[in-house]
Amino acid sequence: MSEGDPVIARRRSGQSGEARVNDTRVQSQYQPYKDAEWGFINHWYPALFSKELGEGDVEGIQICGIPIVLRRVEGKVFALKDQCPHRGVRLSAKPTCFTKDTISCWYHGFTFNLDDGKLATILANPDDPLIGRTGVTSYPVHEVAGLIFVFVREDDFPLEDVPPIAEDLPVRYPANSERFPHPLWPASPSALDENAVCLGIHRTGYTNWRIAVENGMDNAHILVHKDNSIVHALGWQLPLGILPADDDAIALIEDEGGPKGMVQWLCTEKWEPVLENKRLGVAVAGVNARPYRTSCVLPGIIMVENWPEEYCVQYEWFVPITNDTHEYWEVLVKICPTEEDRKAYEYRYKTFYEPLALHGFNDCDIAAREAQEDFYADGTGWGAEQLVSTDISAITWRKVASRWNRGIAKPGKGVEGVNPASAIRMSRTSKGTPPGYKVVKVEE
Amino acid sequence: MSEGDPVIARRRSGQSGEARVNDTRVQSQYQPYKDAEWGFINHWYPALFSKELGEGDVEGIQICGIPIVLRRVEGKVFALKDQCPHRGVRLSAKPTCFTKDTISCWYHGFTFNLDDGKLATILANPDDPLIGRTGVTSYPVHEVAGLIFVFVREDDFPLEDVPPIAEDLPVRYPANSERFPHPLWPASPSALDENAVCLGIHRTGYTNWRIAVENGMDNAHILVHKDNSIVHALGWQLPLGILPADDDAIALIEDEGGPKGMVQWLCTEKWEPVLENKRLGVAVAGVNARPYRTSCVLPGIIMVENWPEEYCVQYEWFVPITNDTHEYWEVLVKICPTEEDRKAYEYRYKTFYEPLALHGFNDCDIAAREAQEDFYADGTGWGAEQLVSTDISAITWRKVASRWNRGIAKPGKGVEGVNPASAIRMSRTSKGTPPGYKVVKVEE
Amino acid sequence: MSEGDPVIARRRSGQSGEARVNDTRVQSQYQPYKDAEWGFINHWYPALFSKELGEGDVEGIQICGIPIVLRRVEGKVFALKDQCPHRGVRLSAKPTCFTKDTISCWYHGFTFNLDDGKLATILANPDDPLIGRTGVTSYPVHEVAGLIFVFVREDDFPLEDVPPIAEDLPVRYPANSERFPHPLWPASPSALDENAVCLGIHRTGYTNWRIAVENGMDNAHILVHKDNSIVHALGWQLPLGILPADDDAIALIEDEGGPKGMVQWLCTEKWEPVLENKRLGVAVAGVNARPYRTSCVLPGIIMVENWPEEYCVQYEWFVPITNDTHEYWEVLVKICPTEEDRKAYEYRYKTFYEPLALHGFNDCDIAAREAQEDFYADGTGWGAEQLVSTDISAITWRKVASRWNRGIAKPGKGVEGVNPASAIRMSRTSKGTPPGYKVVKVEE
Repeated sequence: MSEGDPVIARRRSGQSGEARVNDTRVQSQYQPYKDAEWGFINHWYPALFSKELGEGDVEGIQICGIPIVLRRVEGKVFALKDQCPHRGVRLSAKPTCFTKDTISCWYHGFTFNLDDGKLATILANPDDPLIGRTGVTSYPVHEVAGLIFVFVREDDFPLEDVPPIAEDLPVRYPANSERFPHPLWPASPSALDENAVCLGIHRTGYTNWRIAVENGMDNAHILVHKDNSIVHALGWQLPLGILPADDDAIALIEDEGGPKGMVQWLCTEKWEPVLENKRLGVAVAGVNARPYRTSCVLPGIIMVENWPEEYCVQYEWFVPITNDTHEYWEVLVKICPTEEDRKAYEYRYKTFYEPLALHGFNDCDIAAREAQEDFYADGTGWGAEQLVSTDISAITWRKVASRWNRGIAKPGKGVEGVNPASAIRMSRTSKGTPPGYKVVKVEE
Repeated sequence: MSEGDPVIARRRSGQSGEARVNDTRVQSQYQPYKDAEWGFINHWYPALFSKELGEGDVEGIQICGIPIVLRRVEGKVFALKDQCPHRGVRLSAKPTCFTKDTISCWYHGFTFNLDDGKLATILANPDDPLIGRTGVTSYPVHEVAGLIFVFVREDDFPLEDVPPIAEDLPVRYPANSERFPHPLWPASPSALDENAVCLGIHRTGYTNWRIAVENGMDNAHILVHKDNSIVHALGWQLPLGILPADDDAIALIEDEGGPKGMVQWLCTEKWEPVLENKRLGVAVAGVNARPYRTSCVLPGIIMVENWPEEYCVQYEWFVPITNDTHEYWEVLVKICPTEEDRKAYEYRYKTFYEPLALHGFNDCDIAAREAQEDFYADGTGWGAEQLVSTDISAITWRKVASRWNRGIAKPGKGVEGVNPASAIRMSRTSKGTPPGYKVVKVEE
Repeated sequence: MSEGDPVIARRRSGQSGEARVNDTRVQSQYQPYKDAEWGFINHWYPALFSKELGEGDVEGIQICGIPIVLRRVEGKVFALKDQCPHRGVRLSAKPTCFTKDTISCWYHGFTFNLDDGKLATILANPDDPLIGRTGVTSYPVHEVAGLIFVFVREDDFPLEDVPPIAEDLPVRYPANSERFPHPLWPASPSALDENAVCLGIHRTGYTNWRIAVENGMDNAHILVHKDNSIVHALGWQLPLGILPADDDAIALIEDEGGPKGMVQWLCTEKWEPVLENKRLGVAVAGVNARPYRTSCVLPGIIMVENWPEEYCVQYEWFVPITNDTHEYWEVLVKICPTEEDRKAYEYRYKTFYEPLALHGFNDCDIAAREAQEDFYADGTGWGAEQLVSTDISAITWRKVASRWNRGIAKPGKGVEGVNPASAIRMSRTSKGTPPGYKVVKVEE
């Protein structure tokens, strides 16, 4: 890491001065992002870990206000809109399947083809004229490396226009190593690589998804992590913060046919570590942090290269459930060519990565996101926030996301969370169940 | 039960084709029903079981957004609006009565005549000019067979226009046996019959009342009951479903001076059992279900004749509390001329009917209703639902209810549930108390 | 206490007839009060007991929808707006201070001067141009007799216009003994007196603050207290109620440079005890109540003189948190010139005053306030309430408060409680945490 005079000089001479401006003109450039309270639609999102959906299993989730049911049959996963067009119940609330190629509504037996969602029959009404003339939206599924992805589309988004999943996943290495060189660490594995193994957790975060994404790419909140066990156990010496020190501190990713987003040139001379704050009398002697780099691509995926260790990369998704909840995914990717490699990785994951990184370290980020919710939830924050030079990350993301998203999700209708204080929700809350990601199953 | 070709032919030739249509014109015919989010007013509703209100007891409930206090004095039950006109507290929250013919507000001693609701005096203000010039609405009470009914009226609905309770109870047998013959079972008893005994339960359902009524009369949801213990314990063989097989599958009840609603000709040739669904490869060998028949009358009472056994009938009420809660009443009526009969009935009720029918069987219905709430709560469902031939039941009910209801309850004002996330409600929810039917009493 | 014929005669001849009128014209005189759902701003409010904020401690509270953070440094308490202008988190959620004269945001290190709230530096961004050009509002603090008061002001209320705290505290005795004589008890101590000691409790009430204030000054609700242990333990004989018996039953306090409000001439011939209600057959033989008097001044402070014993006075604040929560303060003031006096007072407080008066007696008032919430929360109550002669207290207060308040607090923005059913709130509620006064701290 270089931190010489020239860098400082460049910063002093006005670098990023323009980039951090957040005036009305700039804000207008990310109006679509401000409108995307319920998320960006027509994108690939992780739905479940593969292990969460065994053979024959049926599970219901909600993404961008759209209820989705998944069923695995002979290894293949299918995804349909999880709302029976008849009376609106979720198919997943009480899984009912009579054949391998269909799923039936448990209430009146409306039965849908798993592959295209069409109404195949009605259990007790096999000649009804509605059969074949209606159905539910189907969602393309891509399962890889232990993750089930779903392309969450608007009802009329053409299936032939669904892009390959690689367009909605982080930049791949070593394919892009030349373009985004990273001399300090080995090339990051990709979930799409052969022998890639994804391990991780997901849980519901009680904030809007955008607050969460912005926290993930924010380089200025080292403070919340200074007491983390992983930092002290491994003897990392953190700077007070790091500042953009070059107009190119952030590179845009806008290639045709590829993911859209940005890469931050962290741990290069384009970002300057701050070692002292004289006003506060705080100084750190040396800096020996782990070298890492964060990037963010649509629909809101953070990649932390070289994290929490070499040969490992952390993906984070902040999948919108409603306008005030998201599913927070923390996934570590590693290449494990042999079964032995995989077991060693799983062991290290369980004993080190999950408790100290995914929980200990990132739990502090969850707290920071929840702490912002009141400010942004009623719209106050978007206008009142006072941004500084380090917020170039958020502003750049907002703009690139506004340009390249494939659609703004409409506010949920007729689904969980639209009536945030409905009696049924209050009843569940009174029993200790907060709003969540997976369907509340019918007790039998 | 007849299920010959002619029936099928008739169905195939278009029977009920018209009836199930739910286009804009039809929907306009039940607009009043769609407007009745808070229920139909100026009707008789069950308030409490007799045993819930002992001599001298005071209890508070809420129906159609109207808080109601009941007091029993020398055996007679009185009902008044449960909201002191002075500062709005519920009289029932801390029962305070100084005389047999009044109830006093526990806050400032405003005292109301039990019979007419007039302000009789103010404990500490006996000469105030307001006395005799204001009061609370009184509600006619009818107690019979272990049930306390209240006529829930608008403040200005004339007492002389209150109909006899028989107009708001199911059709009576054997009086109507000729008109609605039922060769497969003995005539159903009525709660109004001599020696009728009503046993049952009531509990709060966390859905709009209309969703719940429609579930009650729905003939197409046998699927949710297929695993019920009562079905298997008694060896019932259920069809997959039953279809309307005649234009007269449902008879309207619209006689002057009588209850208004509909009777479904179940277990006759007018409804056809479905024994097979080829697409799903599902077939049932024979059908040996319990013969029964459902009817529904205003303000939303399901009667299931011959259920769960001979000589017994099940009444179900779905009493609106707010726009998203209702009190679900399940009541079995049986004639018990002797004390021995009554004891035998009570024993059978406790050991069989309540656990296996009212709970085991109907609990599945509660789950189905709650599963629809999100779809209908924000209005989405009424326009988006896609109905089929079996939904002739709901559509017929919606139309007849729209024609004959005595008034649409106005949205609640100044009462529990209007502010669904009020801090007081959140406080109670945090302690494990969901929204309910009875008043939250002041702890002493 | 005098209760002779002349008093009754005066009342009968029409006294207070005008005063209790609550017609449209009168209501228009207190429209500002009806608008003050979120409280009156630009007033002194109690924030914490001194013992709740030890040396170096940081605590966050919310008053009138404004989040406020307090920090004590070298004995002195500072108060700032508790919302970082950067991304809106509450500074108090995870106290972080690097110097004695600042407080830092735990998220990104934005650091504010404790004395004027200006942005002093940013931990990791010490040269940002925003430094010195923004900040958070500071709030004057006054600590006295064990209480920390904060002047809760609008952002642009000039500091030089902040009045002395005495203008927002009850009338002082003996200074005012001549003007408001009280022959039945010794002069009430003031929190501002030398050697005054304030002991008490505060807790969150789940109602709008105005409902709570009006309960505090209400002379007509003796009924709710009739079964209180303190009443029976000390053998107080209460009347049924007391009626205003003179046009001057309530004196206004509107002197320039002093507190604004009203004193009720209780326990004088201007208020008449009611000993009998013939309609209800209730009579009390004699009256031997504790002599006391209540007054109320802006921003909503009840003073009960001579309560619960001689040489003691009870102050009560109903500090608006949101539009449906307030912090209820019950404080007893006594002069304790010696350490021995203080210890004796503290002992009596713990063994008698707190359990029997602040809890046993006033808990009944809390119940009465919560019972009114539904009626007033949606605005219904203000128009529908039917007031009587004893409500002269509330009406007089509403009018005087409307005339003299220093500003109507705007509805909260971007703060806790604005979205009453936000997912984060539902999540906390599901864990048993109701809405409260103090910040929810970040778990470490």
